[in-house]
Amino acid sequence: MAAAKSKTSQCPIARSLDRIGDSWSMLILRDALQGVTRFDDFQTRLGIAPSMLTRRLNALVEAGLMERRPYSTHPPRADYLLTDCGRAFRSVIIALFAWGGDHFAPEGKSLLLVDTTTGAESEPLLIDRRSGQPVTQPRFQFAPGPVANAQLRQRYVATPAQPALPVGTGS
Amino acid sequence: MAAAKSKTSQCPIARSLDRIGDSWSMLILRDALQGVTRFDDFQTRLGIAPSMLTRRLNALVEAGLMERRPYSTHPPRADYLLTDCGRAFRSVIIALFAWGGDHFAPEGKSLLLVDTTTGAESEPLLIDRRSGQPVTQPRFQFAPGPVANAQLRQRYVATPAQPALPVGTGS
Repeated sequence: MAAAKSKTSQCPIARSLDRIGDSWSMLILRDALQGVTRFDDFQTRLGIAPSMLTRRLNALVEAGLMERRPYSTHPPRADYLLTDCGRAFRSVIIALFAWGGDHFAPEGKSLLLVDTTTGAESEPLLIDRRSGQPVTQPRFQFAPGPVANAQLRQRYVATPAQPALPVGTGS
Repeated sequence: MAAAKSKTSQCPIARSLDRIGDSWSMLILRDALQGVTRFDDFQTRLGIAPSMLTRRLNALVEAGLMERRPYSTHPPRADYLLTDCGRAFRSVIIALFAWGGDHFAPEGKSLLLVDTTTGAESEPLLIDRRSGQPVTQPRFQFAPGPVANAQLRQRYVATPAQPALPVGTGS
């Protein structure tokens, strides 16, 4: 399903989602980023059916996010290790963590991101490296890049100086 | 499927994924953040089956990310508008955009994030608001929060001062 979408899409968001596939894959990546490498450990943590887990792990290997490294031949067993590309997905996981913590944790904070050098709770913020401004501000807009095809140019027309959307107080 | 996972999970990442459901929902949110509000426009842009789109939009409304606002009764038609919670998902979309642009765009940049006040290309970076440091550094680790249940405490044991993972050069 996801594969069909991105075949015709140049959009880096669509392509990213195509590499991930679904929520299970993102939860696998979440746990891999916590250091989980073994099939049985993923299965126990996620409560996912073995056949489903196999399919997702194979897809993540094929997409270049994980690497399968055998550690036993009898029986055949392997570690699933993150590639550089897979490790870089940490920024998406942290963005999801922050969004979820802001909106779906009425009872309080169950999970923190901690700066281990100070012990302080971290407050993730997505900024523009150049200006230092939060990129969630309406002044930051998507626009077609140099290799954009006609479809993408049509979708992301000349960047408006004014936000196209009503701006909420929550972001 | 995603719903089943989060029923037992306190993890804000799992809860977030539960609200989104799948890749289609994230692509709907991507387009909504570009200003798309109407069923037909979502359908044309995404090439998604109407029944599938209806299901995803209803789920996003139910999850509190979108709001259905009727603009015609004969025939019955509605705009789908982002709530504050839905608009805040922009940070996740931008994180996905940056990750996809870094890893799945061998031909060059098809999409840019632009600072419309300067015209400069933005470089999204996820930092810790307190220290100003990128939170993708291994010094930032997840740890159980004050309301964490036993399951979550077991998963996110005492934060190690050393990174649990081999650190790649790519992140």
